[in-house]
Amino acid sequence: MLEIGFDTVRLDDDNSALVILDQTLLPNNTEYLHLKSKEDIWNAIYKLQVRGAPAIGIAAAYGIYLGMKQSYTLTYEAFYDEFLEIKEYLASSRPTAVNLFWALNRMENCVKNNKDKEIGKIKKALLDESNTIFQEDVAVCKKIGENGLSLLKPQMGLLTHCNAGTLATGKYGTALAPIYLGQEKGYDFKVFADETRPLLQGARLTTWELNEAGVDVTLICDNMASIVMKNEWIDAVLVGCDRVAANGDTANKIGTSGVAILAKRYGIPFYVLGPLSTIDLASKTGKDIQIEQRPGEEIYKAWYQKSMAPEGIKTYNPAFDVTDAQDITAIVTEKGIVYPPFREGLYKLFENKSLRGD
Amino acid sequence: MLEIGFDTVRLDDDNSALVILDQTLLPNNTEYLHLKSKEDIWNAIYKLQVRGAPAIGIAAAYGIYLGMKQSYTLTYEAFYDEFLEIKEYLASSRPTAVNLFWALNRMENCVKNNKDKEIGKIKKALLDESNTIFQEDVAVCKKIGENGLSLLKPQMGLLTHCNAGTLATGKYGTALAPIYLGQEKGYDFKVFADETRPLLQGARLTTWELNEAGVDVTLICDNMASIVMKNEWIDAVLVGCDRVAANGDTANKIGTSGVAILAKRYGIPFYVLGPLSTIDLASKTGKDIQIEQRPGEEIYKAWYQKSMAPEGIKTYNPAFDVTDAQDITAIVTEKGIVYPPFREGLYKLFENKSLRGD
Repeated sequence: MLEIGFDTVRLDDDNSALVILDQTLLPNNTEYLHLKSKEDIWNAIYKLQVRGAPAIGIAAAYGIYLGMKQSYTLTYEAFYDEFLEIKEYLASSRPTAVNLFWALNRMENCVKNNKDKEIGKIKKALLDESNTIFQEDVAVCKKIGENGLSLLKPQMGLLTHCNAGTLATGKYGTALAPIYLGQEKGYDFKVFADETRPLLQGARLTTWELNEAGVDVTLICDNMASIVMKNEWIDAVLVGCDRVAANGDTANKIGTSGVAILAKRYGIPFYVLGPLSTIDLASKTGKDIQIEQRPGEEIYKAWYQKSMAPEGIKTYNPAFDVTDAQDITAIVTEKGIVYPPFREGLYKLFENKSLRGD
Repeated sequence: MLEIGFDTVRLDDDNSALVILDQTLLPNNTEYLHLKSKEDIWNAIYKLQVRGAPAIGIAAAYGIYLGMKQSYTLTYEAFYDEFLEIKEYLASSRPTAVNLFWALNRMENCVKNNKDKEIGKIKKALLDESNTIFQEDVAVCKKIGENGLSLLKPQMGLLTHCNAGTLATGKYGTALAPIYLGQEKGYDFKVFADETRPLLQGARLTTWELNEAGVDVTLICDNMASIVMKNEWIDAVLVGCDRVAANGDTANKIGTSGVAILAKRYGIPFYVLGPLSTIDLASKTGKDIQIEQRPGEEIYKAWYQKSMAPEGIKTYNPAFDVTDAQDITAIVTEKGIVYPPFREGLYKLFENKSLRGD
């Protein structure tokens, strides 16, 4: 059983606050935030104090529960209207990860399915549903890890981009789940972590959590992915995902598409790992996925003592990019591994699927 | 005539010090260092206070002149021995850019060619030779710019990596030379600059000098090269080089090989620009080129207020990588443009070549 010494996201013991480990302070400080208002929760998601597609989904689920818990409305109609308002508000925090919308939709279905109950009971149902979303995420990530591990062998060199670990989920992570499960089995992976500019999720978060778990991890800059592959140090690339379109095109942290193209060139398998809640069949291809644009200051000012570019310099700072399905070797989910062509395999995953909230 | 408001590297007016613009302080401070001792000059090269293959060559030439100027030896033999000692010392500052060795060899030939003269005259010959190296570099870079510009059209979107501009040369730069010459002609290029981790030469230097010259420049993180290419914003990639092997394999700032692979995938021409002094026919392929390894602190500590990775994290921090010849569209020199297969074309450049010092 994997021991993790921190909580990424949880409800506090008296169900009155969302507790998150403030990821913007890592690796220097492990500080927990206790958030009660929807504004604070919106901000925590926007500022990436909590991040990672599955963790955002969990935070949003708890967030909307906490928002509705404070509701004074007496009728279902008023309650539902207020729910929709908060739902829309939280949905506006970040556009790319579909898990946010998936979790909010699932919570909405919960409200609707309990419409005949009294308000207090609906609130209790929302609490239960958000807890279920959390618990399912832990189980789902473990299953993703087992499926991913079946693709790997002991001693392998692995490259990962951004952070798709425990810090991005309830536990285990997605891309890092096979690494943790392999670690328990003594697989002795050699992991390379892209630092992942501009927000350094790889440097600050992935190296931190792998290091805490005793995994052999080496930090590189994003632009060193090519040389470590050329050095033949990488046997597989493992990345998470923020939204997978029906054809397999995958939005993930900016830079992922470049890593995939490099992996293909060097003949290295490139695996995308994520739960079904990240697959969005409503997005036909990557062109349907909205890419979040973030402030340029993140590139030249955040983290630094002084500005690292001239005053007023133009920037382009997309938070995600889309990896073409043709560059993906396989998509690993809790329901199995899908190989190209992806469309058929992805649709098949949803047959007889009860987990999906919409 | 291109007006540049700063000096990258020069000898001061009374020939007593190497004056360099301290590039580690840009873009926040423009501060000049006056260096006299060989130790200070070695340090300035090692610390990248002066950097860029051609500028390193110029700095080394002036450095060895300044070192020998202070010599008290009376015989040629003693003078030459001392010369070799300083040469070897300065040569140990950075291993990858061949211009360093090229300039030092050229200075050595100058000593040898003047062996029958009195020591004072040899010193004067070394002064003249180092000034010639500087002046030739300016002329050579201008010619590289003209040749490079012949490959481009007005309004083009251009991507560059690291800094191969005026700050890397005597003037004009190599990769940036066509941009400056195009700017004078109103070509209105849209330039994208990779920030170039870990030392941020793109963010701190390329955007700074292009901005000063009024060129339209947009800063991106290294891992955004793929998305700007996919967006069809890039019509050509221009990069400098630190050493070109006889088969066209090219060592340049870490990350260049990845940009080349991406460009090939997106069907974008990838041009390497550099003087003949960067071509090293003694290196048969990229495998013969030594890649400088630098301290991991540059990745997780330099620039930051706090450490951006856990204490004691393992790192891999190569300063350069080798771009395979197969990913290079053309190599642009002052003597013309060479297309694949490169070996024949590169050898041809050196026929009847008097510039080359060895």
